Amino acid sequence: MSYNLLEGKKGIIFGALDEKSIAWKVAMRAKEEGAEFVLTNAPLAMRMGEINKLAEACNAQIIPADATSVEDLENLFAKAQEILGGKIDFVLHSIGMSPNIRKGKSYGDLNYDWFMKTLDVSALSFHKVMHVAEKMDAMNEWGSVVALSYIAAQRVFPDYTDMSQAKALLESIARNYGYRLGLQKKIRVNTISQSPTKTTAGTGVGGFDVFYDYADKMSPLGNASAEACADYTITLFSDLTKMVTMQNLMHDGGFSSMGISEGVIDMIQK
Amino acid sequence: MSYNLLEGKKGIIFGALDEKSIAWKVAMRAKEEGAEFVLTNAPLAMRMGEINKLAEACNAQIIPADATSVEDLENLFAKAQEILGGKIDFVLHSIGMSPNIRKGKSYGDLNYDWFMKTLDVSALSFHKVMHVAEKMDAMNEWGSVVALSYIAAQRVFPDYTDMSQAKALLESIARNYGYRLGLQKKIRVNTISQSPTKTTAGTGVGGFDVFYDYADKMSPLGNASAEACADYTITLFSDLTKMVTMQNLMHDGGFSSMGISEGVIDMIQK
Amino acid sequence: MSYNLLEGKKGIIFGALDEKSIAWKVAMRAKEEGAEFVLTNAPLAMRMGEINKLAEACNAQIIPADATSVEDLENLFAKAQEILGGKIDFVLHSIGMSPNIRKGKSYGDLNYDWFMKTLDVSALSFHKVMHVAEKMDAMNEWGSVVALSYIAAQRVFPDYTDMSQAKALLESIARNYGYRLGLQKKIRVNTISQSPTKTTAGTGVGGFDVFYDYADKMSPLGNASAEACADYTITLFSDLTKMVTMQNLMHDGGFSSMGISEGVIDMIQK
Amino acid sequence: MSYNLLEGKKGIIFGALDEKSIAWKVAMRAKEEGAEFVLTNAPLAMRMGEINKLAEACNAQIIPADATSVEDLENLFAKAQEILGGKIDFVLHSIGMSPNIRKGKSYGDLNYDWFMKTLDVSALSFHKVMHVAEKMDAMNEWGSVVALSYIAAQRVFPDYTDMSQAKALLESIARNYGYRLGLQKKIRVNTISQSPTKTTAGTGVGGFDVFYDYADKMSPLGNASAEACADYTITLFSDLTKMVTMQNLMHDGGFSSMGISEGVIDMIQK
Repeated sequence: MSYNLLEGKKGIIFGALDEKSIAWKVAMRAKEEGAEFVLTNAPLAMRMGEINKLAEACNAQIIPADATSVEDLENLFAKAQEILGGKIDFVLHSIGMSPNIRKGKSYGDLNYDWFMKTLDVSALSFHKVMHVAEKMDAMNEWGSVVALSYIAAQRVFPDYTDMSQAKALLESIARNYGYRLGLQKKIRVNTISQSPTKTTAGTGVGGFDVFYDYADKMSPLGNASAEACADYTITLFSDLTKMVTMQNLMHDGGFSSMGISEGVIDMIQK
Repeated sequence: MSYNLLEGKKGIIFGALDEKSIAWKVAMRAKEEGAEFVLTNAPLAMRMGEINKLAEACNAQIIPADATSVEDLENLFAKAQEILGGKIDFVLHSIGMSPNIRKGKSYGDLNYDWFMKTLDVSALSFHKVMHVAEKMDAMNEWGSVVALSYIAAQRVFPDYTDMSQAKALLESIARNYGYRLGLQKKIRVNTISQSPTKTTAGTGVGGFDVFYDYADKMSPLGNASAEACADYTITLFSDLTKMVTMQNLMHDGGFSSMGISEGVIDMIQK
Repeated sequence: MSYNLLEGKKGIIFGALDEKSIAWKVAMRAKEEGAEFVLTNAPLAMRMGEINKLAEACNAQIIPADATSVEDLENLFAKAQEILGGKIDFVLHSIGMSPNIRKGKSYGDLNYDWFMKTLDVSALSFHKVMHVAEKMDAMNEWGSVVALSYIAAQRVFPDYTDMSQAKALLESIARNYGYRLGLQKKIRVNTISQSPTKTTAGTGVGGFDVFYDYADKMSPLGNASAEACADYTITLFSDLTKMVTMQNLMHDGGFSSMGISEGVIDMIQK
Repeated sequence: MSYNLLEGKKGIIFGALDEKSIAWKVAMRAKEEGAEFVLTNAPLAMRMGEINKLAEACNAQIIPADATSVEDLENLFAKAQEILGGKIDFVLHSIGMSPNIRKGKSYGDLNYDWFMKTLDVSALSFHKVMHVAEKMDAMNEWGSVVALSYIAAQRVFPDYTDMSQAKALLESIARNYGYRLGLQKKIRVNTISQSPTKTTAGTGVGGFDVFYDYADKMSPLGNASAEACADYTITLFSDLTKMVTMQNLMHDGGFSSMGISEGVIDMIQK
């Protein structure tokens, strides 16, 4: 189904790895809604992924970029504007990686260099993206920037370890850069705090299945899927949400507002 | 501009008083987006208002109802389904009234019967609307219910007096009934916390101009207009936000995330 | 153990019913810390309770008052000042009652007159207490007012029904009256959001045992006891917390900041 | 005035620079309340400061430590236990430094190496402190850890630049490590979100005077002083707050709960 919500809009989508990626679903939906965009991912992630398939399906070009590199981002924004023939209207930041999680380090045993790496890749990259966009004056007025977050920014999920901090940092950057871009060019910046999602990245977190099921039972609507997240992201890129900014928007089937649910009580009493 | 976001959807819109009303704008936009709906307001409010003009413009029927009366609401939901030829997909609750504010009572000098009246009209009515919808099984699966709120639910705006409590209550009802309707029929329930808006109701609050200007200077995007609020409401009625529920969604140009702004500093230093 | 934290302070303590009551524990601890105070409760509650035992243990007088009656409260504040020989330094509001919960009404089937009663007894009474204190100029500068709340004000606990709204209302009143009393007399007003507690009132909520255990397993420190709550309340009445106001303070062993815990995972996996 | 609240307790206090420091005031008050402790600061900060005067006044030893160095922290905890003759009961983390603020870099022009430095010094150091305490089993059961934060973690204060992110990170670490230490040893971890304070560090932030005055006028009790913060910190180290954990506690005269105040309206209308 398409509503032409993004007709004429140009974007950059970070972080599509494979078909399960939220960024992948956003790209597919953005295409359906009439947008043009470039895809980007880290060179390493691209080798592992199947982004070429997506690029073909969306008739989009791929510009590799390490989102922690200001230089790469400058190249990305320059090429994107060239390819798309104008300034950018929307950006999706869907980037997260923790070496500590990959290596199974517990929260009491983090490697601090890796902790810094987690923060740099998963959060500071978002600052850099907006910094480069600002310096190059690469975005249109009333543009929209969205990053994907998780409720571990507010509450403790023990296995999420240093990614919890990365998400807290990401949301703080959204607020602070959102103020700046809002004043300058009416650009809005928000984060979507998405249900646990069975992406390649998500399922890498220890104990994922347990807290996926728990969240699903806690939420009256169940966990939000990647497809639903893509739909929601489209609304935030559209002209219908121009005055929503500096918000962390829960897209979670109600999880964040729950204390206890009948579903969880059933799980416990079994 | 129309995207056909609400094609085939049926709704009930409470609270359109005159052209400045947010509910009025929502009705106009819902019509453009392909929805059919009935309009309703309290008999008294209707006498003062110009709702007939709106009904004509939207080709909608008006069903008077006192939203504090379960009986009136039953009649409303029955007639609405009859007129629209099926169950309801969306409801807008835009109802607020404080006798204490009308009479200029300060927070230290509230009339407690009026306080109860404020709560009944502005908040319990929302429970009653959903209660009746549930009892009559009057809504479709994946329906959407939205009520309008204000940030006085979270922070102190001295002149807002007992309406602050009404909004806190309203948001609490949204969460709690949202759980119930979510489990039963996948219906979502949210509140939009809107910028101060120059509606007939809004401007009745003492010192309105001062805090309107203050909020406008604090928010990087300025205050959100009634039109922008209508656009946003449309997204919440559409199928693109199915998994957003039990949330209080700030639609405020960034106000809620601000500590201090350069605009406010300028106001102070002048 | 005593620190003389409340030496010379005069107070009013609402809501001691029996030995399990938090208000009872607060009275005992306040006495130990050197305070003098009067006890008060609704005439009906007093008949059921054992407040005379407490009064004896604390060498305190009892002044019956229906906290929904401004007249009763005026009498209470007048007599309290007479008995204690001066203005009041601290007030504890520990009052909550829902006819809907007592009668086992589900959230979708509330009796609305009872709903109003719940709000009046459990929340508006708090406004009335401060209103009377203000009108009579019955409190000293730098006084402290505390009411007991529960996290159902923020998150959904289905069995808590309309008490969720009462607590949201109570916390809103704390903020708003806190502003007023702060400006006028440097008096602070806060709510303590306490763990589920095995009081006579608490255990009346349906499914109490399940969510008590759940909260206990979720919280790294376990549920906070009534005794611990009394200790914490003492700090808020003392001169060491003079600048804490208009806050809802979680006293819950960490529950409110948890997403999922190892203890809950164990419960689920059993 | 002393209550002997900390009699027999042993602590480590980070971050006393000079008489205006909050950590300095905490040390003085902790001493009055019967605690024994060691003082620590970065070697560089110690050269600039007057910490020897404080050490003398408190009869405390100084152990220099760079809080970003796990090795230094290990040495600190070892020596502290040796000097104090046992495990540690309380820790104050009052450390914050942003090279970007020092050099006057705006938020759109941050040096990213310095950004990482800000995060490492002001936030990761807090993780390291608790990590070392855990590894060395250096704290007693029911111990208390407090770090000082600022509301820029939640809301935008443009001149606070990357320290906003550092505080968001710090609070996230408090929650996450609080879970861990709570489960293991009933140790609680909280942050105090303090009013803007005229310390040497605080006044280094651009436009400090303006937002100090603004916050003062916004808060019904005015800004909380460093002395009041020390008093409050004492309550969190005492045995009266054992079940408060993983919280960010506003110590701000009410600022955080304000939307607008009469004082700010006066400032604007002048």
